[in-house]
Amino acid sequence: MSESLRIAVVGFGEIARRQHVPAIARTAGAALVAVVDPVTTQAGLPHFRDLQALLREGPEIDAVALCTPPQVRRAQAAIALAARKHVLLEKPPGAAVSEITPLIAAAHKAGRTLFASWHSRYAPAVEPARHLLAGRRITKVTIIWKEDVRVWHPGQAWIFEAGGFGVFDPGINALSILTRILPHPVFVRRAELAVPSNREAPIAAELELSDEGGAPVRAEFDFRQTGPATWEILCETDAGPVALLRGGRQLRDDDRVIVDADKDEYPALYRYFLALTADGKSDVDLAPLQLVADSFMLGRRRFVDAFEE
Amino acid sequence: MSESLRIAVVGFGEIARRQHVPAIARTAGAALVAVVDPVTTQAGLPHFRDLQALLREGPEIDAVALCTPPQVRRAQAAIALAARKHVLLEKPPGAAVSEITPLIAAAHKAGRTLFASWHSRYAPAVEPARHLLAGRRITKVTIIWKEDVRVWHPGQAWIFEAGGFGVFDPGINALSILTRILPHPVFVRRAELAVPSNREAPIAAELELSDEGGAPVRAEFDFRQTGPATWEILCETDAGPVALLRGGRQLRDDDRVIVDADKDEYPALYRYFLALTADGKSDVDLAPLQLVADSFMLGRRRFVDAFEE
Repeated sequence: MSESLRIAVVGFGEIARRQHVPAIARTAGAALVAVVDPVTTQAGLPHFRDLQALLREGPEIDAVALCTPPQVRRAQAAIALAARKHVLLEKPPGAAVSEITPLIAAAHKAGRTLFASWHSRYAPAVEPARHLLAGRRITKVTIIWKEDVRVWHPGQAWIFEAGGFGVFDPGINALSILTRILPHPVFVRRAELAVPSNREAPIAAELELSDEGGAPVRAEFDFRQTGPATWEILCETDAGPVALLRGGRQLRDDDRVIVDADKDEYPALYRYFLALTADGKSDVDLAPLQLVADSFMLGRRRFVDAFEE
Repeated sequence: MSESLRIAVVGFGEIARRQHVPAIARTAGAALVAVVDPVTTQAGLPHFRDLQALLREGPEIDAVALCTPPQVRRAQAAIALAARKHVLLEKPPGAAVSEITPLIAAAHKAGRTLFASWHSRYAPAVEPARHLLAGRRITKVTIIWKEDVRVWHPGQAWIFEAGGFGVFDPGINALSILTRILPHPVFVRRAELAVPSNREAPIAAELELSDEGGAPVRAEFDFRQTGPATWEILCETDAGPVALLRGGRQLRDDDRVIVDADKDEYPALYRYFLALTADGKSDVDLAPLQLVADSFMLGRRRFVDAFEE
């Protein structure tokens, strides 16, 4: 094995080009050595149309970062693990919770790392929020996660198709933070999904969650926001309010700002991935995806105005 | 503790009266000592309107069998475990996969048994089918699970409400058998849910599942069957077809009938529950419920004719 972890990025769309490429470039011990995409190439890097071609004809690699849509990721992860490559899964880790279990077994068998990444957990205020809340009794949580789908997901028609997650595509980022910062697991009690009359996936959702102690967690996800996005998790605690604002970039303890930083999430994510591969460990936390699946199972649907981009 | 396991049945509807009461009566070492239901009573047995009243005023009990609708079961299980009672959950174990995790922790903490029961797994041909298939390479599985909702679920309007599971209420029985008899875990690849235009839950569903090896598993669930029900799991294997028929009561190896019996499922289920409590163990397999949640998450919905009972 070479000194650096040789990584191929698979699925060279927006998130790969905007986040993964610069993060790998900034990560000591990581090297981007190939790009796999049916269409898009990167100047100066070997390019392959699919993962099989890379494994057959390409340069040696140690790991793949799967940035393809969730619907095809499981098959690619299975191929990569069978070839004994480490696998980083973009979020959400798959289209179904059940499809990840065999991948965990495959990673174990191959002696390689499977990392179900949740990029929002690496926002700079998330770990400080977790530590702050660890010593508190939380009495209520309110999540407001609203953004303009036309601004943040232009041309992504698949997001409103079945299996495309709809507003849960950003909403799962909030759930990935929530499940990281709360000291106890939460579960879904009630969900209402607002589905455009001409689409299959929800454009807005209201969730009621709870932990075993009964503290209510209420989440509002909405794609119909105009103007600036709102990405906030507000916790009421026995020692005053704790607010995680700006998508995990700002932390307030009552009226005191504890963290306010614009640090990128992906470099920290890659540092952790490298540590996992070095330690021969996997990290597959399916809790955020489970909450989404449960919301779809028990949620009430109501139809709202058709959505045209 | 008395010699028999003293059981209270909570939720005294059809399944409790028709299955649990006679099964407990036939199980050596088990005794039905109370009934909890807002309305229905049983002659000769102490009756309580809710679980709290039983725990406060009732006879000593060792265990509860929760036969209430899945939407309220989690809260009751939490109360029972906090009072250090063993808990048997009827199927499905809850309204959400995520709500079961805290119960597992609570059972562990209380040193009591949590048993997520799947009654169809105790049909007489299921274990023989599992043993037969263990030595085979399975190339294809077809599940046909069709019954007349008017015959099998009269007056159960809740079944078509959000969270009521619709045709997955019987379909999960098929999935509970499937996940027991196959040697490898399966996951959902595709789902199509047919929802009556005046209801929320599907009246029919088609699923495509697979195991890691790629063997296709196709399931057809339908509530619109008239005439006799069809409850069949057909496996093609490298050594000929294996058919599990009559809801797990008949097993055929090619054209040879291996098992054909009408033995009740619940006495075996209760014998196993007693063994779990004696051994201080829990058994919580969420795979069938996970497959349902995944089907709702990634499934395509189409609307079909309104359903009136």
